[in-house]
Amino acid sequence: MIIDGLQYANWSEKIFRQMREGGVDAVHVTIAYHENFRETVLNIEKWNRWFEHYPDLILKGRWASDIDHARETGRTAIFFGFQNPSPIEDDIGLVEVLHDLGARFMQLSYNNQSLLATGCYEAEDPGITRMGRQVIKEMNRVGMVVDMSHSADRSTIEAAEISDRPIAITHANPHAWQPALRNKRDEVIRAVTENGGMLGFSLYPHHLKGKGACTLEDFCRMIAETADRFGVDHLGIGSDLCQDQPDSVVEWMRVGRWTKDIDYGEGSASAPGFPPMPDWFRDNRDFGNIESGLRAVGMSDTEIAGLMGGNWYRFFEENFTGVPGR
Amino acid sequence: MIIDGLQYANWSEKIFRQMREGGVDAVHVTIAYHENFRETVLNIEKWNRWFEHYPDLILKGRWASDIDHARETGRTAIFFGFQNPSPIEDDIGLVEVLHDLGARFMQLSYNNQSLLATGCYEAEDPGITRMGRQVIKEMNRVGMVVDMSHSADRSTIEAAEISDRPIAITHANPHAWQPALRNKRDEVIRAVTENGGMLGFSLYPHHLKGKGACTLEDFCRMIAETADRFGVDHLGIGSDLCQDQPDSVVEWMRVGRWTKDIDYGEGSASAPGFPPMPDWFRDNRDFGNIESGLRAVGMSDTEIAGLMGGNWYRFFEENFTGVPGR
Repeated sequence: MIIDGLQYANWSEKIFRQMREGGVDAVHVTIAYHENFRETVLNIEKWNRWFEHYPDLILKGRWASDIDHARETGRTAIFFGFQNPSPIEDDIGLVEVLHDLGARFMQLSYNNQSLLATGCYEAEDPGITRMGRQVIKEMNRVGMVVDMSHSADRSTIEAAEISDRPIAITHANPHAWQPALRNKRDEVIRAVTENGGMLGFSLYPHHLKGKGACTLEDFCRMIAETADRFGVDHLGIGSDLCQDQPDSVVEWMRVGRWTKDIDYGEGSASAPGFPPMPDWFRDNRDFGNIESGLRAVGMSDTEIAGLMGGNWYRFFEENFTGVPGR
Repeated sequence: MIIDGLQYANWSEKIFRQMREGGVDAVHVTIAYHENFRETVLNIEKWNRWFEHYPDLILKGRWASDIDHARETGRTAIFFGFQNPSPIEDDIGLVEVLHDLGARFMQLSYNNQSLLATGCYEAEDPGITRMGRQVIKEMNRVGMVVDMSHSADRSTIEAAEISDRPIAITHANPHAWQPALRNKRDEVIRAVTENGGMLGFSLYPHHLKGKGACTLEDFCRMIAETADRFGVDHLGIGSDLCQDQPDSVVEWMRVGRWTKDIDYGEGSASAPGFPPMPDWFRDNRDFGNIESGLRAVGMSDTEIAGLMGGNWYRFFEENFTGVPGR
């Protein structure tokens, strides 16, 4: 079973077919970066059209059992998530509404301070806000996963403690391996995994040691070491694959509408676009390479099955529950 | 089994308890008159709070099987509907989005011309519009029922013909019995019922012979005659109960934001508010009176069971289907 904890591709029939070729059973897809509620609904409408046009390739994922259904029918289950709480605006009631529309993950902040938490690029991190505490409680109630991939350290540790359910860092790597601002320090990974949460290993080149030149062996050794330190059951893949996106999209991700200046995020003025992917992970057809790489560094079949999808499956099953009383 | 084809009460714990006292298993409730998409979502949020606060009294209805679940657990299933297509604005993609959020009925027009169809108060009725044809097709696909209660005759007859699924007039009476503008002429009732559709009998006083002074016997004789003419299986109750609403709400229903003048609708300058209900149907506790009244005019137990809820149940079961391919 292969489950990817995060992708943000420029979706097309080609990519949906590549997911089938790669045997990808489920993907958490980003459907909002800076979009407000109405704009997020327009993105959901776009997905509804894809579900209608490609019923033989994809289906909408709501529950872990939809992954079983996808496997039985040879399709990929698509689970929605947001990289920013902008879709709920200032309205806690939109948590349940968006959950009803299929949202299963929401980051409490994206690089910047939000109404709920601090982003990893801010100079100061005052922790989870008043509204943030209320929204975590509501997300716990309806079964929407708190994702802290782009949040700052204190906010992330506090979110893991405040949340009654395990939280996730869907896409990042250990900071000790590659000291990118977005990668996570040990105490952050510990707070998340100790509370039952998940870390998805990212293949976004800025998060890799040596960036696009990172070797498969280096990547897989890092996974094996992280498993030794934090427990293999809490780990999966969150590729952060942004396949076929034009560079204007990485600018939208970084700049949104919050500044009139250019912000290069993890890029730079000389390399403002999407960085080139490592040659052993070009797209959805290459998950098999990771599987082989993990075997080559000595991981067992059981460990590999968990890392490639089994652990996300268990996490989805435990956390994608229906709203109580329905 | 008691199912009410339409209510628009000023909802409260009191009314939810009266529904239980009256043995009401399911109600189609209006959640939008002139509201746009975002305002409709705010109304859904309000309902979500009620579902959360009164889980022992009500539950959200999505499928006919939710009525069984409500009966097994002693609650009332609440099905959402709109009296106007304003919630979808000019965006056909919102049909599926709102269906996902629980909408199961949508009127194509409310008294006035809409983007989709003509309302019953317009001087001219050019029939279903270009967008109307597209939206009917989309409603058919996702399983949202076309409701023509406040539409004009030609538009209603065309809707019944264009729609691949049966349509409904959730709340109105025969025009021949009480010639209110909103009541339906024989050819309209025939077009709807011949295509498998439903008519729900209204208890809104303007739709009754003698208004609030209408006797239970008169009302039940009218039902028996309509059953003889159009087939009892196509008939149910759609009380149009507007319990505890202040008169400002009937003004909102009639005037919305479309005029700066006052429009009295079925009322008048001397009686602008909600008219008084007949004394044999004050609220949800009085469905038993209708049952007795139908028995007194000679209807059989089977016919009465169908009229009080069985026919709506069958209609819900046949028409509230999931979006294909899910």
